[in-house]
Parts: sequence; structure tokens; C-alpha cells
Amino acid sequence: MNMAQLFEKKKHGQALSQEEIEYFVAGYTNGSIPDYQASSLLMAIRLMGMTDDETFYLTKAMIESGDVIDLTSIEGFKIDKHSTGGVGDKVTLIVTPIIAALDIPVAKFSGKGLGITGGTIDKLESIRGFKTELSSQEFIDNVNKHKIAVAGQTGNLVPADKKLYALRDVTGTVDSIPLIAASIMSKKIASGADGIVLDVKCGSGAFMKTEEEAQRLAETMTAIGEKLGRKVIAHISDMDNPLGKMIGNKLEVVEAYALLKGQMDETHVDLVDECVVIASLMYQIAAGVDEKTATEAVRGVLADGSAAAKFEEFIVAQGGDMADIFQQETAHQVAIQAKVAGTVETINALLIGEASVGLGAGRVTKESALDYDAGIQLAAKKGDVVAIGDTIAYLYANNAIDVDTIDKVQAAYQIG
Amino acid sequence: MNMAQLFEKKKHGQALSQEEIEYFVAGYTNGSIPDYQASSLLMAIRLMGMTDDETFYLTKAMIESGDVIDLTSIEGFKIDKHSTGGVGDKVTLIVTPIIAALDIPVAKFSGKGLGITGGTIDKLESIRGFKTELSSQEFIDNVNKHKIAVAGQTGNLVPADKKLYALRDVTGTVDSIPLIAASIMSKKIASGADGIVLDVKCGSGAFMKTEEEAQRLAETMTAIGEKLGRKVIAHISDMDNPLGKMIGNKLEVVEAYALLKGQMDETHVDLVDECVVIASLMYQIAAGVDEKTATEAVRGVLADGSAAAKFEEFIVAQGGDMADIFQQETAHQVAIQAKVAGTVETINALLIGEASVGLGAGRVTKESALDYDAGIQLAAKKGDVVAIGDTIAYLYANNAIDVDTIDKVQAAYQIG
Repeated sequence: MNMAQLFEKKKHGQALSQEEIEYFVAGYTNGSIPDYQASSLLMAIRLMGMTDDETFYLTKAMIESGDVIDLTSIEGFKIDKHSTGGVGDKVTLIVTPIIAALDIPVAKFSGKGLGITGGTIDKLESIRGFKTELSSQEFIDNVNKHKIAVAGQTGNLVPADKKLYALRDVTGTVDSIPLIAASIMSKKIASGADGIVLDVKCGSGAFMKTEEEAQRLAETMTAIGEKLGRKVIAHISDMDNPLGKMIGNKLEVVEAYALLKGQMDETHVDLVDECVVIASLMYQIAAGVDEKTATEAVRGVLADGSAAAKFEEFIVAQGGDMADIFQQETAHQVAIQAKVAGTVETINALLIGEASVGLGAGRVTKESALDYDAGIQLAAKKGDVVAIGDTIAYLYANNAIDVDTIDKVQAAYQIG
Repeated sequence: MNMAQLFEKKKHGQALSQEEIEYFVAGYTNGSIPDYQASSLLMAIRLMGMTDDETFYLTKAMIESGDVIDLTSIEGFKIDKHSTGGVGDKVTLIVTPIIAALDIPVAKFSGKGLGITGGTIDKLESIRGFKTELSSQEFIDNVNKHKIAVAGQTGNLVPADKKLYALRDVTGTVDSIPLIAASIMSKKIASGADGIVLDVKCGSGAFMKTEEEAQRLAETMTAIGEKLGRKVIAHISDMDNPLGKMIGNKLEVVEAYALLKGQMDETHVDLVDECVVIASLMYQIAAGVDEKTATEAVRGVLADGSAAAKFEEFIVAQGGDMADIFQQETAHQVAIQAKVAGTVETINALLIGEASVGLGAGRVTKESALDYDAGIQLAAKKGDVVAIGDTIAYLYANNAIDVDTIDKVQAAYQIG
């Protein structure tokens, strides 16, 4: 077998065989296939697509490129969730304690953020003392004892994805539905969960810009999961506007905890609804109950404080200092005022995401240092009526805040 | 500017600007753009195509990547020809002395062969003593004195093409009409000719398998040449069957000389016709005469022996030993017999080409050593009637001839 044969088939719209896909993934991972051949094939895949079978074989080969986490020593149905990434997306911080409070084990591995997309690990690490590097034993003990543990991806999990993603990132081949689906699903499956709820974001602040693309990605991922014997449900949610009012690592922890404590008003309805839906889906899969029962259970642990208590238990169990959550202070703050009067029609999530990266809340490259306290607080949300001079947003950062960033936030607000 | 922007445009079917194409060619040539980004863009170009304008900008940027030969010290209209490559294609050996005998200067740079496609330089180097490395002064002096010189490509001519072609060869991006057109035309234009006749081969033994593809390539190259102020005519010729009866370096020199000497019969009509057409087109462009006048002139120098005399003069002028042409002997010979009786319907050029490479007459990689005397003589041609046991072909090689090669020649003959 050789790459020439793979190029010929893919260029002419033919499906690659399982053997060919295994040859490619194994060869690229072990270095016998060079970057320049891999990137050429990836572009051919980006432009010619992959069948569901090909995408499944790709996911399988990627899983087999490294270790698979064994969660069998944790009792019960292990449920995971994954978001395709959005601006202000702190849903994981909220739904995992809800599910744990419902006595379903949450054994979650999470990634760091890149670009406008935040990462749960970064958010948790913004809490003083919080440890995301756990040994296998600590991780399993924590899940068995507290029903919840969230750790950074460690070990040799899907090395093929690490290499392929780094290459895709610089060769124009990120925006391919089969490649995105294989990347996400290989990591989720290798992480050992029995069931997965996929939160597919759609809109200006997401990879998938249209409902149709989001739908295709959701279907592709669900099909892969089912072929590999996992229970998978996908939910498509709007990412034209940022989720919630806080964007930035510690700011999002603060908002998540406030939601769990019930300190939300009607302007938080987008975030509350989203969390209830995702948590309900997770509980439906894990407990085998219907939507109504699941939603009532989720609302129950929110109302009676047990989800908030589980959050505190979880933070403390991994070494975090709960008191630190309320210490959110930065050297610089800027308040942004409305320049026109009217109703906030939309807050462009992409621009807010870029502004948050500009403030230091997100990474430009994998090596970028984060300012955990930096971020944006949206004082006015979509639908709010504002007068000229009203403060619509606050920016926080420890480095000086530049005009570009301020302009981006101003431009993000469409007031009409 | 950065590659990400080029990927985005090309993936979505937008044309790259002149500045973007210049950025890519200059950056790839100087090494600031890595192979893996170049190959990804090349695959996007292979699949999404290029407009005529883009192909022109690409050609221009490739020419500007290196030196351009200055032939202004040679008097008269300098005419060149190029074949897209075929099996048994010795047309250059025949038409260049014809044109020189008509007093039109031929200042030709030629390449070495790769795979089933032979190269004029290899054919000439099969003659003992023949020198293809000439200094600029020797080259120009020979053209001024003998009206003909053929040399290997030297110096820093189109370095972008050398790098791009090597990458395309291993990344599935050879078969792209705009990339082929830019590669050929950049080299031809940088070689300094005023006019170019393009012999576009079409069929099983050529890159272009269909008449339609060949037509598109011809039109693309003609348009580039015209935009750069050159006179260009393209001629499409059949390459389903090998051209002539001899395939192999020295064997083709023998056949070319025999044709110039008038030692051809009706079974050579394909080769004679092809050479008369190409020579006539070259003469039409160079002398500004009509087809009838040009064709008569070409047939005239063939009939009166002046083209053959010019060939001898040319070989001797570059140090070749004319007597050596008749020394064609190999350690091994195999005669192939017909296994069925009937009429030869076709002789698959691709299989014959592959067999000739197997015999040592062609290169597997750029580094392969050639056996100049190796090759194939087609005893039966298309249209010939053969009986079982009749010899249809002879194979020659200095290394042992393997069964695979014999089988390929046998399989090439479709007798019905």
C-alpha cells in the first residue's frame, strides 16, 4: 500500500477502504508518512468529503493509535458531555455537579482552550489550588467517593489526533465535518464513557456557522458513537450570541456557581435553559428515564441546593479554595457605553471571543499564558433596551487594555 | 499575507490574486513556506482548479523565481517545441535538424526522462561522445554556426518548478491542468524562445487520457504564451499506441536517423506524419508562411538529404560519434511471439512504456541509472496481420530480462 493510491481514490471521489485509512493513521502517527503527504490527503478529504463508513474507520483507527482509559472500576453508567466550543460556554461547570448530585458518576477528561474557544480545564485552574492533574487512582477514587472528577487529558490518548490536529490547524483543513467528528469522537470514546451528550454549537462564534452544517456534524458524530456501542445524543444550540453574561475563566466560574446557587434573573434565561437541557439529556441517557422525569430531577437538585453543594464538594476534593472564587480583581477595568439608543439586537459572539483573547482570557497559540481574571462582563444582553451612555459591558485585564479590544466589544453590540 | 488566507479562498472556489500567487511561489522557493502547507494548497488547486488569470500569474511568478536565458545574441526568430511526453516520442530528434536545415535557428534546452516518458537529453547522450553540457558561449556559437544546439537545462532556471514538481510527484498533485501548464510554460519561456510548438499527447501512454483534457491543456498553455508575447501553437496527437517502432534511447536515435535518411516504409507512417506536422507548424510560426508552403519545405529538406546532413553536422558539432549510432548491442535479447492470430488492434502505450522502464531504458526515480541500449522494437504495428508464432516484438537489455516485462509487452498487444 502507498499514499499515491489513497490520493488517486480520494481525488476521484472514491471511498477509502478500512485498510487504507488504518495505513494512513498508523503511518502518520509513527512518522513513516511525512507531513506533506498527510496535509495533501487532508485537503482532499476536506474538499471531497468522507462517507459515514470512512469517518467511522478513521475514528476507530485514531482511537487505536494510543491508549484507551478503562473506567470499568467505576460503578454505574459513566456519562460524558462535549461541546464543540463556544464563547462564554461554562455549561460543563454547571451540568457535571448537577449529574453527580443525581448520583450518576461523572468521570470527565477535558481540554485546554485555544483561540476564542475556552477550555474547562483552564476555567477550573483559575480557582486557587485546584488540581487538574490526577493520577488514575486519585481520579477513580474521587469519582467513586464524590461521583465527580474532572481531569486534564493525560497519557497517550489518541496521539493521532494530536498530530493530525496540529497539522490541520496550519493547512486549512480544520473545517471538515468528518475530520471534526473523528477528532471529537475518538477522544470521547478513548476517555472511556458509556454515554455522551454532544452540544453542537452553531452560529458566528462557532465552527459550524449554519444550522445545516451543525446538523450534519451532529448526525455524523451520533452515527460513529452508535457504531462503537455508545449511547450518544446530540443537541444543537445557538452561538450567535455569547452564552450567559460572563466571558473569561474565573468570571465564568463565578457565573456557574451563581447559577447553581439560584442567583439568576430573567436575563440569564439562555444559560439556565441550556444547562437544564444538557443535564436533562445526560440524565435521560444515564438513568434511562424520559425527558419530563429527567428535567424535573435536574430542576430539583438546582432548587434544593444539592447541585451547588456538589459543586463545592467537587472543588474542595480536587484541592480548590472555594473562598478564592470571590476574589476576582484585575489591574485594569474599562466600562463600555452605548453610543446609540435602542434595543440590543445581537452581540456578535465571534467579536466578543476575539476581544476576550485580546484581554488575555484566551490563548493565541498553545504556548500562550492566560490571565485567569481577565474577561468581559456583558451588562446589557440581547433584547435589553439601552440609552446613550448606558454601560453595556465591562472589560477586565491585568495588562493594559488596548483600543482594538474596546472597539471589538463596541462593534459586537448591534443596537437598533 | 499568510497561507491561511490562500487556503480559505481556494477551498471556497475563489480565485487567488496575483499578489497571493507571488507570495506562495516566492515563499515556497525560498523555504519560508513549508512543504506541508504547499502540498495542501496544491491539492486544493488540483481539486478546485485555477482560472486562466491565476494560471498566468503562477507561470509568471515561477519564471521570476530564477534566471531567464537571453537568446538575443542569436539572430532570427528562435523556435522551440515541447512534447507533453509519450512512449517512443523521438520527434525532437527529427524536427530540430529539419528546421535548422530550413535556416531557422533552433536553440533548444531539453530535460531528462522520468518514468515511461523519455527525455531528449537521454537519447542524445546515448551517442558516444555527445555533450549536452555546453557553456552559454558554446551554445550560442553552435546555434549561430550550425543553426542548431540542444543542451540540458542548466543554471538556476525556474527553481520554483523543480521544487514544486518534486512535491507534486509525491502528493497526488501531478494531474492538474493549470499546474502542468504553468510547469511547462514557465520552463519554455525562461528558455528564451520567441515561438513554441506544443505537442500535446493524448491517450493511454500520456498524462492526458482524453481528447477533452488534452484540448484544455493546449488552450491553457496557448493562452499563457500569448499573454507573455510568444507565438504559440498547440497540436494534439494520439498516444494510445507508441510512436514509431522503436522505444529506448539509442534505438530511437537509430529510428530518427533512418527517418531523416528516408529509410521508412508505410508502417512508419504515424511517425513520419507526426514529424512533418510538428516541423511544419514550427516553420509556419518562425518563417511566417502558410501551411502548404511550410509542409512542402519540410518534405523538401527530407527528400533532398539536407535534413539528414544537418543531423550529422549537429551530432558531430556537439562531440558525438556518428559511427556509434550503428553500434547497438545488448547482452540479452528476447523475441515475443503472437499467441493468437489476427489483426493488431492496438499496442497499449502505457504497458510498452512500463516494460521499457523494466528493461532499463527509463528511470524509476530521478537517480536511476539508464541502460542506453535497452529497449523495445515493435516488429508488428497497429493494423498488421499476424499468425500464431509470428514475432511481434524484440526486447533488448544488458541486465537479465524478467518475466514481468515480457508479460507486459505480450499484454500490450491486443490482437483480434
